[in-house]
Amino acid sequence: MDDSNKDSVFTKIINGEVPAQKVYEDEHTLAIMDIFPIQEGMIVVFPKKQVANFEDLPEQTAIAVMKTAHKAMKALREIYPSKAKITLQIAGFQTPDHAHMTVYPATNNKEYHAEPPSIQSDHDELEKIAEKVRRSI
Amino acid sequence: MDDSNKDSVFTKIINGEVPAQKVYEDEHTLAIMDIFPIQEGMIVVFPKKQVANFEDLPEQTAIAVMKTAHKAMKALREIYPSKAKITLQIAGFQTPDHAHMTVYPATNNKEYHAEPPSIQSDHDELEKIAEKVRRSI
Repeated sequence: MDDSNKDSVFTKIINGEVPAQKVYEDEHTLAIMDIFPIQEGMIVVFPKKQVANFEDLPEQTAIAVMKTAHKAMKALREIYPSKAKITLQIAGFQTPDHAHMTVYPATNNKEYHAEPPSIQSDHDELEKIAEKVRRSI
Repeated sequence: MDDSNKDSVFTKIINGEVPAQKVYEDEHTLAIMDIFPIQEGMIVVFPKKQVANFEDLPEQTAIAVMKTAHKAMKALREIYPSKAKITLQIAGFQTPDHAHMTVYPATNNKEYHAEPPSIQSDHDELEKIAEKVRRSI
């Protein structure tokens, strides 16, 4: 099996093979808490169909991902009202095999461009934030 | 007039009061070349309605912006086939008064997080890239 056919970590999450704090799910997309959050509240949104590059998604799938990310942005705005911006990114140099959006609050470029932590978040702490997101999303 | 009622630079571009290299326009959105590109080919996509924060856009407007940004990503993929990713961002710490997406190619986090240039791009050079984008978008 070459890399392009291998299940991504996101596909494994969809299949229940890898645990995750899910915060929203619909027919085409899933949103989870990032376990290496650049800022507290960081959410990852991805299509259920595994496609490497966002520009290769069918337009309707790109729209479905955007709709879920927009809901996530609105939820984070409620939870983090003092943050200047709710940011959104498509980049994925660390997870290049499954197109996704990341969404998190930031007040300036320093917070926006911060490095992710080297150790993953405590499960219980992340679950507390996930609960807040689920109530707002 | 307080700041929230002031026309943004993007609204001035829409109104023809500030020049720009337009690459795509439809009923709800406009796409232009960024004059301070973080990477060559950087495109800015914004809704014609001036709203400060992306999460405050009506869902249909957010979708319209995404559709135009997706077209821009596909065009940049054609023009820059060797770049690892076509990236997309909503952040806007420099232009906080008018929600927008920026789209540009990058191969790694260093290119992705690069500082924008301190002087704006040469008009003729930018127009050459804009011509390529218009043919692909």
